[in-house]
Amino acid sequence: MTKKLFPLSKVYGLIEPGPVVLVTTTRKGRANIMTMSWHMMIDFEPPILGCVISNRNYTFDIVKATRECVINIPTVELAEKVVGCGNTSGRKTDKFRTFGLTQASASCISAPIIDECYANLECKVVDGKMVAKYNLFILEVLKAWVDPANKDPRTIHHRGRDAFMVAGEAIKLPSKMK
Amino acid sequence: MTKKLFPLSKVYGLIEPGPVVLVTTTRKGRANIMTMSWHMMIDFEPPILGCVISNRNYTFDIVKATRECVINIPTVELAEKVVGCGNTSGRKTDKFRTFGLTQASASCISAPIIDECYANLECKVVDGKMVAKYNLFILEVLKAWVDPANKDPRTIHHRGRDAFMVAGEAIKLPSKMK
Repeated sequence: MTKKLFPLSKVYGLIEPGPVVLVTTTRKGRANIMTMSWHMMIDFEPPILGCVISNRNYTFDIVKATRECVINIPTVELAEKVVGCGNTSGRKTDKFRTFGLTQASASCISAPIIDECYANLECKVVDGKMVAKYNLFILEVLKAWVDPANKDPRTIHHRGRDAFMVAGEAIKLPSKMK
Repeated sequence: MTKKLFPLSKVYGLIEPGPVVLVTTTRKGRANIMTMSWHMMIDFEPPILGCVISNRNYTFDIVKATRECVINIPTVELAEKVVGCGNTSGRKTDKFRTFGLTQASASCISAPIIDECYANLECKVVDGKMVAKYNLFILEVLKAWVDPANKDPRTIHHRGRDAFMVAGEAIKLPSKMK
């Protein structure tokens, strides 16, 4: 998928709608993927995100140690793979191979990008003080990539258990909100 | 709107999809409404939420002082009122009156519920340590209410500026994720 660099000042528009995302990491030459829905914007520019990664997840220790990850945003075409990544652990599974996803190199960090996702945010951990109490990592987006052909991404949104919602109709409202 | 009590263990399913929400507060007998998109789940039960309220917003000081608010979740039928609440400040506007929204009493806190919203989460601030640095409040949901008639809520999701997405198709996927 050919992507273009995306302005950091517009990253919030990717995260605010609440899509299920895929977190990629690497350690000791081994790449991994985790499915995540608990994230939010904290500041516009540089874009600061908060996200909760359970300390029971394989990804928790890797992000804590490497202090970096990519937030990859999938669309509904990848829904089965997204759920597959959520139902398995990187402790036992090479998820890139198992789910047929393609690694691409990030430009600022070692963690890989998932090529099939329509947007990718290269992130570093900038504050780990809430990790012990809440499993909450504060990330700064260093670089963002987006598929310029996808103007109305059909992201997926988790409603709990097996229930998901697919992004529907795009509407315009006269908002003064950024 | 007749609502039923909603299990705290299922609140995450309301917040995970990333809906635009309305935050209601009260102070000195004056109720207010703020439109917000920067929120996430932090823990399942009791449900713990994180949310960012800009210190430029009228609501910031009220939540800081009263340590409580209601997170009201609107559907697309309320889209114009939601944007109206986002485009105005409670410093100058009685938003309940201006936008024709109905106050109902919460059961655990003084802040009012917006009757027209399909779900309402009565919250107290349980951790204010990240407020100074990130405007980030940690909330516990004390009681949750939902319209039992609305099985597939058409929530609204902000993509930035005047661009919004309305919750679309509901799909089932064999997720083991809670």
